[in-house]
Amino acid sequence: MRVSEMLIPTLRETPAEAEIISHKLLLRAGFIRKTATGIYTYLPLGLRVIKKIMAIVRQEMNQQGGQEILMPIMQPAELWLESGRWHVYGPELMRLKDRHQRDFCLGPTHEEVITSLISSEIKSYKQLPQLLYQIANKYRDEQRPRFGLMRGREFIMKDLYSFDVDQEALNQSYQKMYQAYMNIFNRCGLDFRAVEADPGAIGGDATHEFMVLAESGEATVLYCAVCDYAANSEKVPAVTEVGRQKSEVGRKEDQLKITEVATPGAHTVEQVTKCLDVKPALLIKTLIYKTDQEVIAALVRGDRELNEIKLYNILKCLTLELADAATVRQVTAAPVGYAGPVNLQNMRLVVDEEVAEMVNAVTGANKKDTHLINVNPGRDFPVDSVADIRVVTAGEYCPKCAGELLQAKGIEVGQVFKLGDKYSKLLKATFLDQQGKAKPLMMGCYGIGVSRTMAAAVEQNHDQNGIIWPVNIAPFEVVVIPVNAKDDQQFKLATDIYHQLIDNGIETIMDDRLERAGVKFKDADLIGYPLRVVIGKKTIAEQLVEVHNRRTSTTENIAMDDVVSVVSKVSNVAATLQVCPETNNE
Amino acid sequence: MRVSEMLIPTLRETPAEAEIISHKLLLRAGFIRKTATGIYTYLPLGLRVIKKIMAIVRQEMNQQGGQEILMPIMQPAELWLESGRWHVYGPELMRLKDRHQRDFCLGPTHEEVITSLISSEIKSYKQLPQLLYQIANKYRDEQRPRFGLMRGREFIMKDLYSFDVDQEALNQSYQKMYQAYMNIFNRCGLDFRAVEADPGAIGGDATHEFMVLAESGEATVLYCAVCDYAANSEKVPAVTEVGRQKSEVGRKEDQLKITEVATPGAHTVEQVTKCLDVKPALLIKTLIYKTDQEVIAALVRGDRELNEIKLYNILKCLTLELADAATVRQVTAAPVGYAGPVNLQNMRLVVDEEVAEMVNAVTGANKKDTHLINVNPGRDFPVDSVADIRVVTAGEYCPKCAGELLQAKGIEVGQVFKLGDKYSKLLKATFLDQQGKAKPLMMGCYGIGVSRTMAAAVEQNHDQNGIIWPVNIAPFEVVVIPVNAKDDQQFKLATDIYHQLIDNGIETIMDDRLERAGVKFKDADLIGYPLRVVIGKKTIAEQLVEVHNRRTSTTENIAMDDVVSVVSKVSNVAATLQVCPETNNE
Repeated sequence: MRVSEMLIPTLRETPAEAEIISHKLLLRAGFIRKTATGIYTYLPLGLRVIKKIMAIVRQEMNQQGGQEILMPIMQPAELWLESGRWHVYGPELMRLKDRHQRDFCLGPTHEEVITSLISSEIKSYKQLPQLLYQIANKYRDEQRPRFGLMRGREFIMKDLYSFDVDQEALNQSYQKMYQAYMNIFNRCGLDFRAVEADPGAIGGDATHEFMVLAESGEATVLYCAVCDYAANSEKVPAVTEVGRQKSEVGRKEDQLKITEVATPGAHTVEQVTKCLDVKPALLIKTLIYKTDQEVIAALVRGDRELNEIKLYNILKCLTLELADAATVRQVTAAPVGYAGPVNLQNMRLVVDEEVAEMVNAVTGANKKDTHLINVNPGRDFPVDSVADIRVVTAGEYCPKCAGELLQAKGIEVGQVFKLGDKYSKLLKATFLDQQGKAKPLMMGCYGIGVSRTMAAAVEQNHDQNGIIWPVNIAPFEVVVIPVNAKDDQQFKLATDIYHQLIDNGIETIMDDRLERAGVKFKDADLIGYPLRVVIGKKTIAEQLVEVHNRRTSTTENIAMDDVVSVVSKVSNVAATLQVCPETNNE
Repeated sequence: MRVSEMLIPTLRETPAEAEIISHKLLLRAGFIRKTATGIYTYLPLGLRVIKKIMAIVRQEMNQQGGQEILMPIMQPAELWLESGRWHVYGPELMRLKDRHQRDFCLGPTHEEVITSLISSEIKSYKQLPQLLYQIANKYRDEQRPRFGLMRGREFIMKDLYSFDVDQEALNQSYQKMYQAYMNIFNRCGLDFRAVEADPGAIGGDATHEFMVLAESGEATVLYCAVCDYAANSEKVPAVTEVGRQKSEVGRKEDQLKITEVATPGAHTVEQVTKCLDVKPALLIKTLIYKTDQEVIAALVRGDRELNEIKLYNILKCLTLELADAATVRQVTAAPVGYAGPVNLQNMRLVVDEEVAEMVNAVTGANKKDTHLINVNPGRDFPVDSVADIRVVTAGEYCPKCAGELLQAKGIEVGQVFKLGDKYSKLLKATFLDQQGKAKPLMMGCYGIGVSRTMAAAVEQNHDQNGIIWPVNIAPFEVVVIPVNAKDDQQFKLATDIYHQLIDNGIETIMDDRLERAGVKFKDADLIGYPLRVVIGKKTIAEQLVEVHNRRTSTTENIAMDDVVSVVSKVSNVAATLQVCPETNNE
């Protein structure tokens, strides 16, 4: 392709709408444009990257026996009512009615559609396993879409669903997909980690997330400095110092008398600890939560954060949210900031393991401007329901080997789930086993955010001048730039090299615009082509071509005849992608 | 691929839901399944065909300088309000609200989105032309979705939009696309015709439809037996006998006295002509129509059909529909079936050219059970508004050369439009010309129904046993069948040949199932692979392989060593598709 023939609207200024670097650079480099909040158009360069990622995904899915299909975006409500998710999914489900007032949604995921399909078509164990996938748009009506492609309302995903005869076979399918995901993100040239995660609302009993490591990541990954343990911080079980020491010598002070103290205006942990001159670790935070069934209080130490996912899993509720001020006032008889577990009647208390072990702690008194000191769990409030409900952070102990946990920020680009028989039971998807007995299909589901992977790649691969694409997902591997496109000799040589590269299977674009060389170099850096081949005066005079590597920022002068072989070395990994997955046989 | 590893759920019975042959066969052969009314899932074989068509479309679009992009399916109402189509489009526009109660639609077409995009990005004539396309889902909330993929609510389309500096440049872009469409449908192996058509609600001043000829087609194509004229029958201008003879000798009878006659119970053309013993050509049909602005009467001869598109174009209204019985009664003071133009006050009469020339005609009397005879246009009712508003049929005169018009039934699979400046004016999309003056962009739009093309191919290519795919869009070019898959020798030979074919770039599937040969042959015929390569006893004994051609129904015994070369001859056209369009450079 020639730049003059493509729509590549680069921008000098950063659009005000963009918050994070991938959003800024994808807009500035002319890869995407916003059509509505959280809804984007992929311009020619953007779509090329998307298609590169898709091609890698397809090859790896097919390699593991995945069969590509295409399911509808518009899904009938009946299926979602059958699975129970029509009501559970909440406002994130994009809903609509057709002209006959029948309910539909725009699929955020396809468990219902695929399970219903498979339950009609698969009758016998002989037809299993089935691994079916698609690459298509998905929809999520985010409360606050932001960060460009990172958290959109319309986005591109690959979703594969596996159907197996039993748990062991499911484990095998899961392992295949896990391996495929490792291959995919490796081939995309990304620095990533597969981590243990929480199944959340999707359900099932095991799941891994694939995290692209980047400072801007919303997720926190904790990994062990000693062993191979790595998990989403949401999922990491606490190994409390107390817990570890319990078996040794108990750290037991004498329990003092519970006493009310005035803490005028102090209602945050910081204010209370300052006011009473104690460490945050001596405080008990009492958090009032509302579920779909009840109001509860959750207690964690003042220096800890509550982990809502752990709490959610313990309560086995459908919805969970922090209670509003009115509810807090109603149940504690005090404004927000003074809740405490003592005499908090008619309410379930969920006590973090660490809290259960505290002695002479500080809590709110359920009274304005007042706290209690010398509060002792068990003596002053019941500890029937003790559990690990706090966030674990870097520096704590690895749950596997007790080594030190280190921390990284990650962007979730893929997730694999063992769903088991959850959906097949709900949607009555059974098969006949070898004994002719009907059994529920064992399911797995496996997603990759294709558009999000593109954004994550930019978050991880950029500098102050622009994007630095990994070669396998670059829109073009090489840009050929004649320094002065008006110079016939330079232009002709550039065109020759451009054709040589293309003829050797290297994806090349030529910047044939009559712009100043500086403008073309700036655009090349912004867009992030892995290699820049420059034809200038030196090429005419000395038959030397300048080859600049975007990632290493190194420039070499190469004899004209060697350009193809030098460039091939960088792009040789990408060459495996030249086979069309669409016409691939096996 | 091996049949045992693919989801190909063939059916012996025809599902009750299917009305036309493509719908029946695509269901029976395991290409698609219904998810909801007018909404389908493409199974592995179905998606392979879709991707073949997409690959051909992409190559031809790229060949003409088209740039692939991807626009959102969810479109904000603001853009449609700006173009005025939010209200015009009616109930066929699939609408929804997001969680903030903002209006969106699911795009049936993308003029608004692309024009808004281009108006932001294109500033100068130097950046033109731009030809941008996408292949994506489209939505139309049909009153009555039916015929499987032929008239769905969610379907796959390619849409390209061209932006040019002036009419001449638009003509060139139009010509490029016209040529690309000819190439595409030729390469898909379809018998089709490009015909003149009416722009309809999309607007613009010229358009062609691409019709796949098939008996089940909903559209009627009229083409000249003498010259190259071909058009959608909706569009063909009438060349009336009267009109042609007018310049020669007038066929003028004496005008007789208008007279009321009793026609008890006769209110159809058939009943009235029988009752009065006259030919239908002597009747004037008076049709009452409601537009968004008025109620009008349209007059055509009793043996003709009214062409609503011609009427719509003359009235320049937004909506047009036959008036309901209540309105007819109100304006004619009679029940439906007795309307006539005489004394039909306060209403515009649109008179077909043929009617204007009639002498002593029969019409309704605007009175129950009563008609008028000897009605004469001009004398008995005004003929201020005379126009061609009737349907032209086979046997009439070619408007170009007066040759005889012949008729064929067609399925519209593509349409190209010159939109001119309609949308660029509405959406204020301008560019600066060479003189620095702002001018509206000249637009064209060009659509191909990808999923509909698949269905049309089946309508045109099938027999009583199943589908007969054109080789370029077949899911696989060849099926290899070991007659007895339990026979190790046969199975091994079949596997060898299967690998030889694949290694030679031929898309091959092997039916490795332990089914009876008859079952496998029946499935092969139903699915419609162009070639069937059978390995049986004869192969072991005589080194002969049976090669069966699905289309010609001929079978040859080929020496084993010649199989690849014989098969290659059939599949050689398809080989051009093996180049991946995703990684195609130019």
